[in-house]
Amino acid sequence: MTESEQREAHPSVQEVAVIVGGGPGISSSCARLFAKNDMRVGIAARNPNKSVLQNLEQTLGTRRYACDASDPAAVELLFQNVVRDLGPPTLVVHNIDGRVEGIFRKGITEADPALTLATLKNSAFSAFLVGRQAARLMRENTPDANGAKGTIIFTNASAALKGFPLSGAFAMACQAKAGLAQSMARELMPQGIHVANVPIDAAIGWTQEDGTRAHRLAGTSVDDNMADPDCIAETYLQLHRQHRSTWAFEIVLRPWVERW
Amino acid sequence: MTESEQREAHPSVQEVAVIVGGGPGISSSCARLFAKNDMRVGIAARNPNKSVLQNLEQTLGTRRYACDASDPAAVELLFQNVVRDLGPPTLVVHNIDGRVEGIFRKGITEADPALTLATLKNSAFSAFLVGRQAARLMRENTPDANGAKGTIIFTNASAALKGFPLSGAFAMACQAKAGLAQSMARELMPQGIHVANVPIDAAIGWTQEDGTRAHRLAGTSVDDNMADPDCIAETYLQLHRQHRSTWAFEIVLRPWVERW
Amino acid sequence: MTESEQREAHPSVQEVAVIVGGGPGISSSCARLFAKNDMRVGIAARNPNKSVLQNLEQTLGTRRYACDASDPAAVELLFQNVVRDLGPPTLVVHNIDGRVEGIFRKGITEADPALTLATLKNSAFSAFLVGRQAARLMRENTPDANGAKGTIIFTNASAALKGFPLSGAFAMACQAKAGLAQSMARELMPQGIHVANVPIDAAIGWTQEDGTRAHRLAGTSVDDNMADPDCIAETYLQLHRQHRSTWAFEIVLRPWVERW
Amino acid sequence: MTESEQREAHPSVQEVAVIVGGGPGISSSCARLFAKNDMRVGIAARNPNKSVLQNLEQTLGTRRYACDASDPAAVELLFQNVVRDLGPPTLVVHNIDGRVEGIFRKGITEADPALTLATLKNSAFSAFLVGRQAARLMRENTPDANGAKGTIIFTNASAALKGFPLSGAFAMACQAKAGLAQSMARELMPQGIHVANVPIDAAIGWTQEDGTRAHRLAGTSVDDNMADPDCIAETYLQLHRQHRSTWAFEIVLRPWVERW
Repeated sequence: MTESEQREAHPSVQEVAVIVGGGPGISSSCARLFAKNDMRVGIAARNPNKSVLQNLEQTLGTRRYACDASDPAAVELLFQNVVRDLGPPTLVVHNIDGRVEGIFRKGITEADPALTLATLKNSAFSAFLVGRQAARLMRENTPDANGAKGTIIFTNASAALKGFPLSGAFAMACQAKAGLAQSMARELMPQGIHVANVPIDAAIGWTQEDGTRAHRLAGTSVDDNMADPDCIAETYLQLHRQHRSTWAFEIVLRPWVERW
Repeated sequence: MTESEQREAHPSVQEVAVIVGGGPGISSSCARLFAKNDMRVGIAARNPNKSVLQNLEQTLGTRRYACDASDPAAVELLFQNVVRDLGPPTLVVHNIDGRVEGIFRKGITEADPALTLATLKNSAFSAFLVGRQAARLMRENTPDANGAKGTIIFTNASAALKGFPLSGAFAMACQAKAGLAQSMARELMPQGIHVANVPIDAAIGWTQEDGTRAHRLAGTSVDDNMADPDCIAETYLQLHRQHRSTWAFEIVLRPWVERW
Repeated sequence: MTESEQREAHPSVQEVAVIVGGGPGISSSCARLFAKNDMRVGIAARNPNKSVLQNLEQTLGTRRYACDASDPAAVELLFQNVVRDLGPPTLVVHNIDGRVEGIFRKGITEADPALTLATLKNSAFSAFLVGRQAARLMRENTPDANGAKGTIIFTNASAALKGFPLSGAFAMACQAKAGLAQSMARELMPQGIHVANVPIDAAIGWTQEDGTRAHRLAGTSVDDNMADPDCIAETYLQLHRQHRSTWAFEIVLRPWVERW
Repeated sequence: MTESEQREAHPSVQEVAVIVGGGPGISSSCARLFAKNDMRVGIAARNPNKSVLQNLEQTLGTRRYACDASDPAAVELLFQNVVRDLGPPTLVVHNIDGRVEGIFRKGITEADPALTLATLKNSAFSAFLVGRQAARLMRENTPDANGAKGTIIFTNASAALKGFPLSGAFAMACQAKAGLAQSMARELMPQGIHVANVPIDAAIGWTQEDGTRAHRLAGTSVDDNMADPDCIAETYLQLHRQHRSTWAFEIVLRPWVERW
């Protein structure tokens, strides 16, 4: 089938969301919330066989895809498969931190060039690849009732706002991602595609196995001093549903007690 | 009745929202949305007898208050009256632009000192007075299920992000308001009070008398190139309902076609 | 004499610099450096009889002026007197912090409205008045060999970059000043007047009576953890001499060990 | 010779400056100014045989080095050779734009992944490699009279401040470089190494063969609407000589008539 035949094969009864990067935090929360809001959800990860992703498939019907998002051909293939399986997406979330083993807490003189480049590729370059394919597909979407063709969201981190010492590689990656998002927003918003950069200025929590939520940094006694990924997902959905007369490009999310 | 007796007289069946600044745009949209979401709404304006405010009273039961928000005593009285009439607020919106006649498009050498000071007082100083009374009351509120005691939102403008030529007074006022909001956020968020600064980076539209919405800048043919105040109000409500693990301090809203 | 006669009476053999705000720190350092660079220097202060200003007069010939810089008429008179005594200025520095007794370390609910307004007037509003008169005079200056007619510099503080808790009034004042400076820069630079905002992100030191410099925060053993006002003055002079092809609008100065 | 023997072989009579990236603009201006200020200057370029670099060698004694600054081994070798030939540097300038043929004016959907990655590597990754080797050497420098061990300056562009449409790759590269510079500054300044990011918010001019300077954008009649690289070099030298009590991290340079 050609892409346009595939589009016809998936009439827009349900929206399609793609989440690139798959773990128990923001990606899982997004998958759950988007499915609950009647979207078909695809989730891509280097290793799609993690139990957390298998669980999402079993409970929500989330489609899993193997994808090294820093590989141009792999990202192109991912989106082809998504269109074939689910239809063209109207919501794409890039949710990859990108830091590799050995990159943490390294001064500039100790930082390893290969690991630094890998971090740049995993984070910022993969964001470019995912954003590019998402934009290609969304430009062909029929506008919804409010004139919007889709939403592309980049999860980002505090380092997008401030380059911290001993983490030059991550500062480069996060600010590169922010720069990409700005450029894409200025280009694509007037074409009906909402682009957003969402720096999470905090450690991110997760919901416990027993379903309780108590997001606390280890060793502290203050509730909600970690960002709850279910709440992050809610902000993403709100961004997706924002009317084009009032599109937010950037929302920094941080816990009530976070210092900034 | 003492304030604590008044608090008991208004058990928290319904939330109370106060909007300072009253016109047909954001203030009216907020009043409608908050009332629809089952809040008791008070709206304060220099002239509370405008027909738009009378209409809100008749259709929604919005309470109207006369208040010069740049006068410390008047602001103190306003909040006393709100507590007496409606109960202590959990949501306060400062929605005053503050520019006076004669201040627009003035170069620095032509700008009038008295009008410049009036703009500063109407906008930034009134934001301080309103934020101060709101914080005083909210600190005494019982936290809700998520630990939050209330939300204070400052409507702001593009000039908060960038000082444009020929509008020094407005740049001063808007950036002062932003600085106040930052300081309040850093102080009050750890006390359970959510503070937000929302620069609207666009001209703001309004819904026409016949109910149709077509937010277009005069002389243009592009829909939604003005910010729809109903959508702004929606963002305010989302901010108010955000979980404290992921509070946004600043959201810039702009139409899809706006240049920035 | 008319202003144009006064201009002729002071042919531009020497440049004229005006410093508004007068103390032993940045103002004195500027006065010394500007005089050393062959400028005629005027310095305005609420109290021009401080011994530090009398010393400057005796050693350097600095002219002293009494001026409440938050009073429009007083600022107008100041610049008239400067033109009469020294000639029209090409360099004006606004160096007023503006905080009053009782404003420090006050939470939003304890902050006093009258003191908050006084801080706004002393700092941001006086910057407006000074900038306005400086611009009026400079627009009439004959461009120098590089096409520049003058430089207006605003000393600012960390609070211009970030609104800290417990200092809402100062955050308002500093960010208002920054907004004014931006607006003026965008208006005046294309007219040949260089406008700069210089936030000093640190405590400011001073040179000891015995001439030694050892700028240390009380109780610390690290040299130069306070900003040396002589070095700040040097940056101001560099800004004044910058070629118009590469004008800096903002330079944040901070000591090597400062956290930011 | 070991590095420490090499250090002894070059007693600090003269300072050593290294400029990475070599063309007729900022690099040449820096080479001239640094040499004039009695520094030994090394300049590294992919092609060190450009006539402009040969001229610098003949007129100023500037040492030329071949170096692909995106190659970790090549950058390591460059600095070894500089130390051997000139001594350990106290001033290092990274002056590489990094954009490759085919990257200009490309929308996100047309942007080529390989060229985008090349731009990231040429610009941000090479800045990391150069900054890393510079920091390694500077940490071993004997502090000067003011306690400073050296200065690392990154030339940057408007895209560091704002991601423009149709230039996502460059926005990524420039903001990554800014993030790196911030991280390095926060780490290295307290170690006595001054790190600065200097976005040039304009097209950059150059001095004509006949020595005249008239920096005008093609087709315009306004002087100095391009940034003069001689003036940029002057700012770099001022940054290098700034006292550590007042180090500037970032200076944006733009022509007087530039819109921002």
